[in-house]
Amino acid sequence: MTIEEPMTLTSTTPAPTSTDKLNSILAQAADAAVIWAETTPQERAAVLLSVADHLDSAADELIEVAREETHLSEARLKGELKRTTFQLRLFGEVLDEGSYLDARIDHADPAWGMGPRPEIRRTLEPLGPVLVFSASNFPFAFSVAGGDTASALAAGCPVIVKAHSGHPRLSERTGDIMAAALAHAGAPAGLFDVIFGTQAGRDALLDPRVKASSFTGSIPGGRALFDLANSRPDPIPFYGELGSVNPTFVTRAAAQKRSGQIVTDFVNSYTLGAGQFCTKPGILFVPAESDIAGSLATASHPAAAMLLNERIQSGYVEALQTLSGHQEVEPLVLEPAAYENPPTPTLLHTTAAHVLAEPEKLLAECFGPAALVVTYEDESELLQIARIIDGQLTSTVHGEDDDDIAPQLVRSLARKSGRILWNQWPTGVSVTHAQQHGGPYPATTSVTSTSVGTASIFRFLRPVAYQGLPQHLLPGQLQDTNPLRIPRRVDGRLQNPDNKV
Amino acid sequence: MTIEEPMTLTSTTPAPTSTDKLNSILAQAADAAVIWAETTPQERAAVLLSVADHLDSAADELIEVAREETHLSEARLKGELKRTTFQLRLFGEVLDEGSYLDARIDHADPAWGMGPRPEIRRTLEPLGPVLVFSASNFPFAFSVAGGDTASALAAGCPVIVKAHSGHPRLSERTGDIMAAALAHAGAPAGLFDVIFGTQAGRDALLDPRVKASSFTGSIPGGRALFDLANSRPDPIPFYGELGSVNPTFVTRAAAQKRSGQIVTDFVNSYTLGAGQFCTKPGILFVPAESDIAGSLATASHPAAAMLLNERIQSGYVEALQTLSGHQEVEPLVLEPAAYENPPTPTLLHTTAAHVLAEPEKLLAECFGPAALVVTYEDESELLQIARIIDGQLTSTVHGEDDDDIAPQLVRSLARKSGRILWNQWPTGVSVTHAQQHGGPYPATTSVTSTSVGTASIFRFLRPVAYQGLPQHLLPGQLQDTNPLRIPRRVDGRLQNPDNKV
Repeated sequence: MTIEEPMTLTSTTPAPTSTDKLNSILAQAADAAVIWAETTPQERAAVLLSVADHLDSAADELIEVAREETHLSEARLKGELKRTTFQLRLFGEVLDEGSYLDARIDHADPAWGMGPRPEIRRTLEPLGPVLVFSASNFPFAFSVAGGDTASALAAGCPVIVKAHSGHPRLSERTGDIMAAALAHAGAPAGLFDVIFGTQAGRDALLDPRVKASSFTGSIPGGRALFDLANSRPDPIPFYGELGSVNPTFVTRAAAQKRSGQIVTDFVNSYTLGAGQFCTKPGILFVPAESDIAGSLATASHPAAAMLLNERIQSGYVEALQTLSGHQEVEPLVLEPAAYENPPTPTLLHTTAAHVLAEPEKLLAECFGPAALVVTYEDESELLQIARIIDGQLTSTVHGEDDDDIAPQLVRSLARKSGRILWNQWPTGVSVTHAQQHGGPYPATTSVTSTSVGTASIFRFLRPVAYQGLPQHLLPGQLQDTNPLRIPRRVDGRLQNPDNKV
Repeated sequence: MTIEEPMTLTSTTPAPTSTDKLNSILAQAADAAVIWAETTPQERAAVLLSVADHLDSAADELIEVAREETHLSEARLKGELKRTTFQLRLFGEVLDEGSYLDARIDHADPAWGMGPRPEIRRTLEPLGPVLVFSASNFPFAFSVAGGDTASALAAGCPVIVKAHSGHPRLSERTGDIMAAALAHAGAPAGLFDVIFGTQAGRDALLDPRVKASSFTGSIPGGRALFDLANSRPDPIPFYGELGSVNPTFVTRAAAQKRSGQIVTDFVNSYTLGAGQFCTKPGILFVPAESDIAGSLATASHPAAAMLLNERIQSGYVEALQTLSGHQEVEPLVLEPAAYENPPTPTLLHTTAAHVLAEPEKLLAECFGPAALVVTYEDESELLQIARIIDGQLTSTVHGEDDDDIAPQLVRSLARKSGRILWNQWPTGVSVTHAQQHGGPYPATTSVTSTSVGTASIFRFLRPVAYQGLPQHLLPGQLQDTNPLRIPRRVDGRLQNPDNKV
């Protein structure tokens, strides 16, 4: 890491955004909202493609800056940038397909069951300027040009990104490249900007020109912003993705059959990216009689790796000290350097009975390369755990297809979790149509939404109905001729023009 | 009205729900949530039909109690009950069609653009017990067996209704009939209950077993409950439908062509149900040079009609006194009995310039038989008004197809409103697939949702993804064989089995 520090010192960290500058950005965003909302989905798709192309062209430079600021590996950052530009292009496809508009046409019906029905047409329209609080741990994919930005722009909303303090220069540079790409593609001025500093972020969140906000980060930080958004005279949707311990349950049968594989894969998953994923499996439940806990104690572990920044390092050490200092917790893998910078990976151990007795203390998230291995005496304890856990981004079961406990365990976990995995590991979060990255509080502040995948566009749309308007005053997606050739629900029935979908 | 009072006195008003009773109701609801969530959509549809049938059978009795408690006419109540049972049956159709599950299947794809994609399947699942705060002004359709209840039960959620203090006996009786219908249809115990009293409502809203809440009522009342829901350690979605002045804009051309019709229809709309609709057109903008304001001053108006209850009567008089006492407001129709009980309909007048100068004071909602007529000098004032108004449930334009101002006015209003009407009146809110009853704050606390129409079911659903699960552990809607025969999005493309949709 030492070779990077001189470079860091020679570059300038962006100054906090001033009140005047923020005001100008917000005013421009409000103006851009009107223009951008009236573009066609195809026009917005072209702009997203332009952004993706420009970012790909600048990959080498961006990855270099990201390495300096985040300590993440080049391979990891390359993969993340690929994910980011893929995501922008995927939203282009979503726009082209058009189902996301949820266009509905009810023709007038004098025989409608509750009395004559007028003609009503309904579609989703953009909310307006969106404030994105970017994440520390994904400097590309959950940051300036990340999923929140891509989905909000696709929806038709201007975006103001509050840069994360962990990678300010990367944020500024990514923002500059995006701005150039947007200008090149003919997007309206003020459609997108990056702001810096905690105060600017708070001020923007309280500004009436901001109509929605998204956030990826810690429970305390996210809750504070959620409360702030709700304190406004006009509260706005606040989509916070906060914390999750991502419990992983190994059934007796799976432990008997595949303990070696589970041990290897678990170590890989919980230490991936130095444990700095929202979906890190932070708790592993294994049968007391299996050799998994013992094997983990002697398993080969990756070397110490620097965490994203000083704040995360110190927060991690604090959380780890609290957890490891609990009287019912014992070390499984705990080197002297576990609390150092960089920290070595750590595994702790307790029993299911203790977790059931003190769930708040033992099921706390520890953001970094640590996990808690929990041995259980009886599989019924897993069902008890599933009943008491908080909301989770993911819950995982390693089991056998004929496991008696599986149906009940899966259903019980589904009531608490955004995503359920079977014989896989939660750290990968693919960007797809069926992906769900969310969950009940505290996993998120908005249980009905996702921050990853094509369905994340719905966070930034709201329904508008039109009753009795002449054709030329209707949005294109609601006109009789269906000029966008999109799927629509007509008189309650889905219609697919061109069998496009 | 006097003949009804003895009947009221002889009947018993339900006592406030005790803490113990509430606790028992919540415990039962939590248990029922697990069972109800696992029923098939078809099973839930059958239960909704049973409820509708039982309510229809009890129509005479229910309408009689409703008349006593709400002062609404028999015709109005009959129509409302018809709407209510129609709504229950319509949700049965929604369940049968199955699109509402938003089932998505992404097969594993090694060539996926951001790297190999695992198999992920995603569907919407019920949130859990829902607390419904029922409305004063719709004792059937937004109350015990109303739209919130129908959509939540359809979604798979148990329902606890906080009865409105304006019609407690009707609430109790409707609840009893529903309970009998549910038992008859084999629904789980605890699926539905009615509670009474402000304290019980607040306690229930703060209880961790309640997973979402809906509300129809005033801005102060709704905001207080919204704040309470967000103050929970685990905040929950709170769907409040609060207030709206429903501005109505008459263009110069429309005024020239149809002023007589507009005068007649406006009087009918703003006085309908004694002005006690969330969608009452509370503000009418007309050209200063037209004869509309003058004609309204002499137009035939309906007789005084009792308001729903004492609290609404006193709140109405207070709001009317404030508005009519404003120095820039003058009476257009204002009889001595305007502030009496029952109140005669009232029309006040001001100018667009004054509204633009003091929008907070002049655009205040006045729930009851009053409206403000605003004369404008120039159509450009309408665009200025559209820019400064708060969020609205509805905005209406009366115009001609070739009106130059119409495109910009409609787009501008669409940014603030849940529903836009053209040459119609907003007071009717049909229950359809394309209906939207919502809007930006303060129209609602949840701009992305609707409380009327089939899309209202989405308020009570949340997405869950399943990664790599064997077929028998997947919800039916996600299994390969598509046993529910519903439309699904497979690898990003909509598929319609049986061309059912």
